[in-house]
Amino acid sequence: MRLTILGCNSSTPRADGFTTSQVLELGSKIFLIDCGEGAQIQMKKVRIKFRSIDYILISHLHGDHYHGLIGFLTSSSHFGRTTPLTIFGPRGLKEIIQLQINITKLSLSYQLNFVELYKDESEVIFNQSNIKLSTIPLNHRIYTNGFLIEFTPSNRVIDAENPRRGLNFQSCEAEQLKAGRDLKFNTGKTIPNQALTKPGSYHSYAYCSDTAYKPHIISMIKGVDVLYHEATFLESERKKAEQTFHSTAREAALIAKRAGVKTLILGHYSARYKTKKDHLKEAKTVFQSTELAEDLRVFQF
Amino acid sequence: MRLTILGCNSSTPRADGFTTSQVLELGSKIFLIDCGEGAQIQMKKVRIKFRSIDYILISHLHGDHYHGLIGFLTSSSHFGRTTPLTIFGPRGLKEIIQLQINITKLSLSYQLNFVELYKDESEVIFNQSNIKLSTIPLNHRIYTNGFLIEFTPSNRVIDAENPRRGLNFQSCEAEQLKAGRDLKFNTGKTIPNQALTKPGSYHSYAYCSDTAYKPHIISMIKGVDVLYHEATFLESERKKAEQTFHSTAREAALIAKRAGVKTLILGHYSARYKTKKDHLKEAKTVFQSTELAEDLRVFQF
Repeated sequence: MRLTILGCNSSTPRADGFTTSQVLELGSKIFLIDCGEGAQIQMKKVRIKFRSIDYILISHLHGDHYHGLIGFLTSSSHFGRTTPLTIFGPRGLKEIIQLQINITKLSLSYQLNFVELYKDESEVIFNQSNIKLSTIPLNHRIYTNGFLIEFTPSNRVIDAENPRRGLNFQSCEAEQLKAGRDLKFNTGKTIPNQALTKPGSYHSYAYCSDTAYKPHIISMIKGVDVLYHEATFLESERKKAEQTFHSTAREAALIAKRAGVKTLILGHYSARYKTKKDHLKEAKTVFQSTELAEDLRVFQF
Repeated sequence: MRLTILGCNSSTPRADGFTTSQVLELGSKIFLIDCGEGAQIQMKKVRIKFRSIDYILISHLHGDHYHGLIGFLTSSSHFGRTTPLTIFGPRGLKEIIQLQINITKLSLSYQLNFVELYKDESEVIFNQSNIKLSTIPLNHRIYTNGFLIEFTPSNRVIDAENPRRGLNFQSCEAEQLKAGRDLKFNTGKTIPNQALTKPGSYHSYAYCSDTAYKPHIISMIKGVDVLYHEATFLESERKKAEQTFHSTAREAALIAKRAGVKTLILGHYSARYKTKKDHLKEAKTVFQSTELAEDLRVFQF
């Protein structure tokens, strides 16, 4: 699981900071999650190929989360993408994109599909290739979803802890073992698969931006490996956070602690904070395993 | 007259280069001309205040000329703009912007006006505050206008060459002279205005992007101070230029030469060129007074 932060600022782009967008690589799939203005510029900086994106998830229709989408889609066509692309996002997004495609006479080189989200309850919106994708309904000024992305590998992995690991399997034998088959020798001897392998690792990522403090999401994100949770404000601006339906760093940490996640990543910072050190400090008083999102930072889990 | 290049690349934003957008300060008015993705980021870098923009001109509806507009308009509202803002652009632009405002429930803090352009002939679209703004119909793949912006000052300026300049006018006397009145002394003596002043300078700027080589525009831009003309390609890719309705550096220079402009600025470079030195060289063989647009370069005329 690899997460690349393209932008992690709130509201408006800055001379030295981009708005929300990130790329998650999980299993064999790559997700572009939100797409603030200039996301494609950031992708070029970290050399993520546009055609590598399999799915796009848009949390809500505030500009700092979707203004870069039409540019990314247009450029993907200029670069000759041919594989279909599916966007999961709120109702209305399809109309916005389709109108621009029509009026500007843009002829896309690939098939563009939309899955429009409108439900107030969590739903599984994708379940294939060992990836399960569910919405996390959030509490913001307009209709907003977070996303829970879970990877359950079908393949088993050869158990490095197993005392028989010194057997030096041929590659075809290793493939059979990963596929769950027993190891058979010419002598007729058989070693059961489970004696040599263990299940592949489950990985999970939860993305929660933007939202007011919403403890209801805790049951959904229980024990995830990584939680990205917005922390627009510090506790000192908690009133402002409440008014604008955003969270403080401490609230993000409370969610992480109560959900028992492994790692919390903070982001969606207000422009009023020149440094994010206080966000980290505030969150760590509640939940130690906290990291700060930074533009172009890459997390490998 | 002051021109700030925010972006001058064609097609798609790059890791190290923005698409087309520029700010022209002329007389007392400030124009944002085209608005590619990330234009607002560039404005912040050069510290141009969003609220200082009086008018926005959009040449055509290719993404590299308008994808940054919704972001700029949204941010202007976040920053509390209250003065009305008028956009001149092709028919369809209003629908694109208005749909996003409606669907995303964006409540703008200012009045937004559109003047939709659709005529194939040149027209005067603005004529006040000593500024005259005309369209320059161009030849591109979709409906496209360049813009001619002319400033004719109503005020006279005190003639620095005049031998009587040492008179040390009081500020109220200077104001009267600029307004065209004669200078009257308490003694009854009068010096005629024209003996001390001269007309203020006429300034003109022509923006021509995107277009195939179109000599028809020459009569419109005759003798302008500054011509910005696209030069997407070099002569070595002239076929590509013709196919895509773009110009070469040499063609831009031919237009400048035949129109007798004072300065030519090249821009809208294709991504295939790592350096723009050859553009400059090619244009200068035809028209010596050529400059290269570069992101964040400021021209003062």
